Amino acid sequence: MNGADVLCDVLLANDVPVCFANPGTSEMHFVAALDRKPQMRCVLGLFEGVVTGAADGYARMTDRPAATLLHTGPGLANGLANMHNARRALSPMINIVGDHASYHLSLDAPLTSDIESLATPMSNWVRRIAGPDDVAPATEAAYRASLTPPGVTTLILPADAAWGEVGAASVGKVKLASPPAVNMDAVRTVAAAIRAAPGRAGIIVRGRAARADALAIAGQISTGSDVRLFSEVLTARMQRGRGRVAPIRIPYPVDAATAVLRDIDVLVLVGAKEPVAFFAYPGKPGRLVREGCQVLTLATHGENLNAALEALRDELGVKPSQQTVFATAFPDEATPSGKLTEDAIALSVARKLPADAIICDEAVTSARRFFALSAFAAPHDYMMGTGGSIGGGIPMATGAAIACPDRKVINLEADGSGMYTVQGLWTQAREKLDVVTIVFSNRTYAILHGEMRNVGVGAIGENARRMLDLDHPSLDWVCLAKGMGVEAARADTCERFDALLDSALSRRGPFLIEAVL
Amino acid sequence: MNGADVLCDVLLANDVPVCFANPGTSEMHFVAALDRKPQMRCVLGLFEGVVTGAADGYARMTDRPAATLLHTGPGLANGLANMHNARRALSPMINIVGDHASYHLSLDAPLTSDIESLATPMSNWVRRIAGPDDVAPATEAAYRASLTPPGVTTLILPADAAWGEVGAASVGKVKLASPPAVNMDAVRTVAAAIRAAPGRAGIIVRGRAARADALAIAGQISTGSDVRLFSEVLTARMQRGRGRVAPIRIPYPVDAATAVLRDIDVLVLVGAKEPVAFFAYPGKPGRLVREGCQVLTLATHGENLNAALEALRDELGVKPSQQTVFATAFPDEATPSGKLTEDAIALSVARKLPADAIICDEAVTSARRFFALSAFAAPHDYMMGTGGSIGGGIPMATGAAIACPDRKVINLEADGSGMYTVQGLWTQAREKLDVVTIVFSNRTYAILHGEMRNVGVGAIGENARRMLDLDHPSLDWVCLAKGMGVEAARADTCERFDALLDSALSRRGPFLIEAVL
Repeated sequence: MNGADVLCDVLLANDVPVCFANPGTSEMHFVAALDRKPQMRCVLGLFEGVVTGAADGYARMTDRPAATLLHTGPGLANGLANMHNARRALSPMINIVGDHASYHLSLDAPLTSDIESLATPMSNWVRRIAGPDDVAPATEAAYRASLTPPGVTTLILPADAAWGEVGAASVGKVKLASPPAVNMDAVRTVAAAIRAAPGRAGIIVRGRAARADALAIAGQISTGSDVRLFSEVLTARMQRGRGRVAPIRIPYPVDAATAVLRDIDVLVLVGAKEPVAFFAYPGKPGRLVREGCQVLTLATHGENLNAALEALRDELGVKPSQQTVFATAFPDEATPSGKLTEDAIALSVARKLPADAIICDEAVTSARRFFALSAFAAPHDYMMGTGGSIGGGIPMATGAAIACPDRKVINLEADGSGMYTVQGLWTQAREKLDVVTIVFSNRTYAILHGEMRNVGVGAIGENARRMLDLDHPSLDWVCLAKGMGVEAARADTCERFDALLDSALSRRGPFLIEAVL
Repeated sequence: MNGADVLCDVLLANDVPVCFANPGTSEMHFVAALDRKPQMRCVLGLFEGVVTGAADGYARMTDRPAATLLHTGPGLANGLANMHNARRALSPMINIVGDHASYHLSLDAPLTSDIESLATPMSNWVRRIAGPDDVAPATEAAYRASLTPPGVTTLILPADAAWGEVGAASVGKVKLASPPAVNMDAVRTVAAAIRAAPGRAGIIVRGRAARADALAIAGQISTGSDVRLFSEVLTARMQRGRGRVAPIRIPYPVDAATAVLRDIDVLVLVGAKEPVAFFAYPGKPGRLVREGCQVLTLATHGENLNAALEALRDELGVKPSQQTVFATAFPDEATPSGKLTEDAIALSVARKLPADAIICDEAVTSARRFFALSAFAAPHDYMMGTGGSIGGGIPMATGAAIACPDRKVINLEADGSGMYTVQGLWTQAREKLDVVTIVFSNRTYAILHGEMRNVGVGAIGENARRMLDLDHPSLDWVCLAKGMGVEAARADTCERFDALLDSALSRRGPFLIEAVL
């Protein structure tokens, strides 16, 4: 048995049954080993950003790592942007990066590069396998590191460790440490601070604390103790919809964000970090809480956030029977007609959303209204790019559909962002994934036009326009999708969009709607 | 005047008039500055691999750096694979990576990452600008570093250095050091070794030594002193065609490469490195020269390779009037007909090649015959991916066409490789570039099937097949191209291919031929 076989066996023994892959020569022994394990589902991406982004989407929906297979430094490099998003989403992931045989590195062959230096910024944990006998312990360590607490791990697999014979490998289930008990000192400190600031305390949730069960507890605290409930501007995964507690999302623009937090004297972090401005702007603050706001940590990522919220609720004397208050019906609003708009799409998707759907929102400026409306939609999971790295949407939808084959995935995608990893549509076609992609075709990097105004540029000239607009020629998304085997159609009126969406939702399999704005 | 303006001014003062760009929020002041400099040509890429690959193509054809504009760590990450190719091609390049304002970094906002760690493996030189007053000296240093010797440089531009006012900046032409004088000791040592090994010496050329003028001198040495002339397996740029000296390319397969070098006792490096196996294989050597072969350096990258070759020629007593021997006519061969094949495409392109064309060859296994045939074609420049990183072809053709608007660019592109940076077709359409892309649509990673055989796997199973083949669904390249505004058509017979190629060569502007194999 060689190292590559052992690596596969450790993954399978620990319920890692999916490998998103874009292999190369140095991984041929690993590919051969995967070929001997039909129980491993191998999913090809035609570009590595698809591979890592899909693993992120898979992890968000299953709370489990998928493996990725990447080819040397450049293959890893192509996957880094979505590893960055995954790292910020706190997603478990096991990247396996094939490298030259260890004795070949000193020859500096063309594909040689410093893989550790590339991997470290986008990984929580990096290890180079020392040889065939190190494959099992290293892979077990990677698995453990990917889950305690969840995060991105990268394992470098030299070709000679893959092809070398392994002496004796005992492959079994890795024992994972349980999360620590609730920190009752923190619970009491937080409760006292909330009591001391009636009506001026807030809780911000992230990670597992944004799931329906945790949100329900947070909602009881919010109602029972007059605490405002927030979520971060970018959300890895939140369970939303009718009957679920909907936190206030901290807005992206700095002025709006500081306004939302202006009268908060105590901010409690539940798996979250203190909110900061996405970017710095001359003369504007980087921290978003007001001067003097007390920022307290109830529990951090990797701790049992539900248990911590329950303990806080009890400490505050709020009853588990406390009813939370939430809206149950859409705002009364006429169905839009005529020329298609961003807001009309948001309303249409929110109203028509099938129960238990998964939303992957990378529409950037175009779907801003959707998040608010989704509180009234059928219960669903809502995911966004979390690291600000563009090109996460199509791959994330791909991975989510692999993770949840019985749920409809709807990808709200900006045209600019979609182009970074457009190759993911092919994987959706090949794997026959149940994904509806809605491309907001406004033919511009709209967010950057806004940012130009933010830095004080009024009228822009030819050079800037040509860097901010996606026109001349316009992208034809119907053609692009068909080129990769995904059925597609175009809408420029509300009526046509609604008809296409009805059709796409009534069938299985990938479909793309180009929404011309 | 702010830092961003100064950065642009330094570039323009030093004849860096092209900026390949994919900007983001942290670069808005730089975009505003570029907007104030209409003499800077800004070329948008819809993905950063297009940006850096185009800068590489531009550099290869002009021997000058272009600037790139990339957005924070993830934007840089997306550009790294083609920076890797550029570094291996010894291409000058100035990457400008926008980062958060320096005081914002400690807040660990979502887009924060360790840019230096990401950039270093794929750059010869990295520097973070310390503040507005450091913009001019840092940019001058980057320019100098990009050319002495030519290589990839990365300049990190914090947003507050871009927007900050600059005290007094004197912007002017940077003085570059001249290359050192020819090392006559090396010349004499090499000449003596060649004389001592009659018929068993070889010269291997790279970089500037693969241009027509240097090859002519090397050809005189080869003929006059019975020295074999080699080039590396991957060539950044070689001037080829009728009337030019054609070196023997060292083959990619290890066994073929060692066979070619088996009776070489003295190998002389001219701007080149000692040839090594691209990958390690169990039981096969990594070094390709035979045991005991003497490897000598005549001159290294950055030295005057022409002058060194002239000095060697003179030292060997070869007359400058020495005629070199080269074939002048295509091998006598019937024009293929019927079902299209890889070799038929190679022959057709070689025969029809317009004078002074530029070939960008990323056809991997599919165009292996073209290189041999191109020795008989009209004089042209021939370029390949040099670092083994996939996805260089379409961007490289894009950059070459920007550099040489009056020359026809022909991109021989594998379907697998083309998909990595397919977004480059849009830039070709927008900039109306004179590029003919020929996609070898064999619907498989053919090289990996070969590598599976190399590692001893005979029949492959379902998991491997699904990672090595690009079928179910097939890519429709005509649709993909049209989706990005590039006219395209499909050929599956030799006759149809010839007709399409004639048509594409007779007009200006981008055109894609999907050659179905």
